[in-house]
Amino acid sequence: MSVVLREISPNIRSIRPPRYTALSVRAAQIREELRQGVKKPYTELIDVTWGDPQGAGLKPLTFARQVLAACLYPKLLNNERLPADVRQRAEGLLHECHGGSVGSYTDLPGIPQVARQISEFISRRDGGVPSDPDHILISPGSQWALQNILSVLVRGGGGVRSGVLTPQPSYSLSVMSVVGLGGVPVPYQLWEEQGWEVQVEELNRALESAEGECDPVALYVINPGNPSGHVQRRESIQDVIKFASEKRLFLLADEVYQDCIYKENIEFLSYKRVLAEMGPPFCDTVELASFHSASKGLLGECGFRGGYVELVNMDPAVMKHVFTIFSKDNAPTPGQIALSVMASPPQPGDPSYPLYRTEKQQMQTLIKDNVRKVHEVLNSLPGVSSHPVEGGAFAFPRIDLPPKAIQKAKDLGMEPDIFYCLRLLEDAGLFFTPGCEYGQKDGTYHVRFCIMVTKDTMDDLLTRLAAHHTQFMNDFS
Amino acid sequence: MSVVLREISPNIRSIRPPRYTALSVRAAQIREELRQGVKKPYTELIDVTWGDPQGAGLKPLTFARQVLAACLYPKLLNNERLPADVRQRAEGLLHECHGGSVGSYTDLPGIPQVARQISEFISRRDGGVPSDPDHILISPGSQWALQNILSVLVRGGGGVRSGVLTPQPSYSLSVMSVVGLGGVPVPYQLWEEQGWEVQVEELNRALESAEGECDPVALYVINPGNPSGHVQRRESIQDVIKFASEKRLFLLADEVYQDCIYKENIEFLSYKRVLAEMGPPFCDTVELASFHSASKGLLGECGFRGGYVELVNMDPAVMKHVFTIFSKDNAPTPGQIALSVMASPPQPGDPSYPLYRTEKQQMQTLIKDNVRKVHEVLNSLPGVSSHPVEGGAFAFPRIDLPPKAIQKAKDLGMEPDIFYCLRLLEDAGLFFTPGCEYGQKDGTYHVRFCIMVTKDTMDDLLTRLAAHHTQFMNDFS
Repeated sequence: MSVVLREISPNIRSIRPPRYTALSVRAAQIREELRQGVKKPYTELIDVTWGDPQGAGLKPLTFARQVLAACLYPKLLNNERLPADVRQRAEGLLHECHGGSVGSYTDLPGIPQVARQISEFISRRDGGVPSDPDHILISPGSQWALQNILSVLVRGGGGVRSGVLTPQPSYSLSVMSVVGLGGVPVPYQLWEEQGWEVQVEELNRALESAEGECDPVALYVINPGNPSGHVQRRESIQDVIKFASEKRLFLLADEVYQDCIYKENIEFLSYKRVLAEMGPPFCDTVELASFHSASKGLLGECGFRGGYVELVNMDPAVMKHVFTIFSKDNAPTPGQIALSVMASPPQPGDPSYPLYRTEKQQMQTLIKDNVRKVHEVLNSLPGVSSHPVEGGAFAFPRIDLPPKAIQKAKDLGMEPDIFYCLRLLEDAGLFFTPGCEYGQKDGTYHVRFCIMVTKDTMDDLLTRLAAHHTQFMNDFS
Repeated sequence: MSVVLREISPNIRSIRPPRYTALSVRAAQIREELRQGVKKPYTELIDVTWGDPQGAGLKPLTFARQVLAACLYPKLLNNERLPADVRQRAEGLLHECHGGSVGSYTDLPGIPQVARQISEFISRRDGGVPSDPDHILISPGSQWALQNILSVLVRGGGGVRSGVLTPQPSYSLSVMSVVGLGGVPVPYQLWEEQGWEVQVEELNRALESAEGECDPVALYVINPGNPSGHVQRRESIQDVIKFASEKRLFLLADEVYQDCIYKENIEFLSYKRVLAEMGPPFCDTVELASFHSASKGLLGECGFRGGYVELVNMDPAVMKHVFTIFSKDNAPTPGQIALSVMASPPQPGDPSYPLYRTEKQQMQTLIKDNVRKVHEVLNSLPGVSSHPVEGGAFAFPRIDLPPKAIQKAKDLGMEPDIFYCLRLLEDAGLFFTPGCEYGQKDGTYHVRFCIMVTKDTMDDLLTRLAAHHTQFMNDFS
């Protein structure tokens, strides 16, 4: 017997791999078959399982990449072909790197200039609510930051375990982090009929359900929703804050899609802002960690691993522990540079501004068009219903699977929505993820796919989806 | 009372911040005072607390930065001023990035081409011992990889806790990781009199000391040593492997300084190679994880956060869990590109080779000169003894502090070596770390400083150190 099998940590053992592993394996096989020239009804697989705009062919912002290139290869600082504001930004950042090089460790927790730019960005975003750069911790991605905040909050094994209220449906990595620490995810159901709204009654029910099971310490929210695509309104955020205050829960606000709002006449409101504007006693007592990232939104630089968390009302004694944990790993310098661009993009009058504005508008127009088309097509399909994607990177339609399809899946020992996704993958070359991966109400089935893709990909995807879905419903009617 | 203070995880609470925090605080103040023009016997503080060559003014390898710049800003692929092999390498890497962009998530756990290059590098390094790219997991730095392997091995809280045999002196971050998981570090003393050699008797003593305290599951080694500067010989590695085999311990080999060997006539031997060459039963039973990084060695790209672990003889059932953990975070693409350059540098005949060879030789000559000078100066000082730095990035001399200095430190409620470092910082502007941070035999005192600095810095450092030390010894004689 292996040395390790005897010893493997029970927390880690209880992390389950994604439920759609069978789909990933089959997708890899199909890719290989296509490479080898095997004939299929499609010549290319469309993988929309991740929120990865550049992986799907979208182009990075030129300004971001020029600044990065100049920081990494400073000979470019003398290259007249690079705009002056690019060179100036790169020089400023290099000046704050030890030894003037991006190859050195940065200050902890982050390059001071970048922390300042982020705090200014937050304050502008939040209508002037102040933000303290000393309460911003830069990290290798927002999930890394969330994992480390959780490691301070969650007590696992030995005595009563900590619980974290977690939305259903929810991005699964966060649940994985709670489980890996020995904590207990306490699911609360988002209200699909009301466009995936958070309900306080449901939060109360979830909290009561935890009694005797665990000691709930935190409430995790994702806004804009992943996978739900819902954007919370002010009243809803106020309700959640009051609930957290009353029940003494630490608020973890995953706000990485704040930049991606598609619905007309609504704006993103941060938990930080709503909390501040609620005034006492809330504004100076409710503890909040708000997460953001350079991977998401219009910047979409997933490969650089740059994120941050802003801490609000955290006890200084606890903050000390959080700093110690964060000081264990430096955020990669290129990710920090990407954050600098996100927090402080070119402004009117800057040489890079016209191109930046054009690229940004093109991207916004593209995604809004995608969202519109997705809504039209989905709601024209039999048995499919989908709320408008208000924000975020994903559509999450509900599929009312015919009883024969559900029976077929059960015969195969498979979740019905995995069966649906497998057929979609096999027959139409579309790689979607099943709703069971994110949690869904019993008896309901969903699929998730990313809407941040090129126009051609989206048109192709929707054509394939419509044809396949109609066929599928006929086959099992 | 804070929500969190009531709940903070006891494992996290037991991680202590670095012991030299008082020194860091004072160093920051001194920097600020110098900026404000306060008169001191020095105009600049020399901070040699980290192994951060570029932070200390060393230059990055041109080939690495050119490849990175071309990958990040692909317009440079058409720039004739960049050597053809740079553009070819960048094109090959971009081809394996989704969407042809470094801004996308990479395959897990890493860009396939980079994993292949690393496995070829390992096999070349190990005299032909095969290496399987599927057993190489690319990570955001070697410490991240170590932390995640530990999270699988270590069981903390609830029942018997796991122990990890850890060298003394030892790089403190690894100890922090064990504690943070609720595990117990079981220190074994390196044998200073024998040049910081590992002793099997001492390993046995440590193991016995753990009885009733914890269940030892792993043995952690650092070779070349940090902070010891020792390089293990084949017989010593064989002894450690036999011990791990007999006691059924998982071997964790931190080999990030494998590229940095200064002593004549010795070469770096990896645990993987020695294990393979020992033959059965060891070669196919002893479980080993070997860590390496793009941050260390001649590449020295600390800012990019690229590392890897190679797993040897790990049970496939355990490997599955390890993969799940590693799949939680993508290694940053620029860090992976740095690893590609480390594993597969320019070869004779390539356009970039002459410059690469020159830069590499200059760096090697510089560090060897530094090491020689450090040895000469240290051993000329009263009460200082230092083994030759055989490898790694640090000198770790022993300082026989006069009883009056020890008494003075005690009066101040301070570890004697912290007191020594504080005086050195205050009076000479040298920021060293105290031996108590790494663990040292009772009644012995050491300091650690990085030897990867420019010639001018090293000359200045040694002049200041010699003058200050002589004064210090006089003051307390």
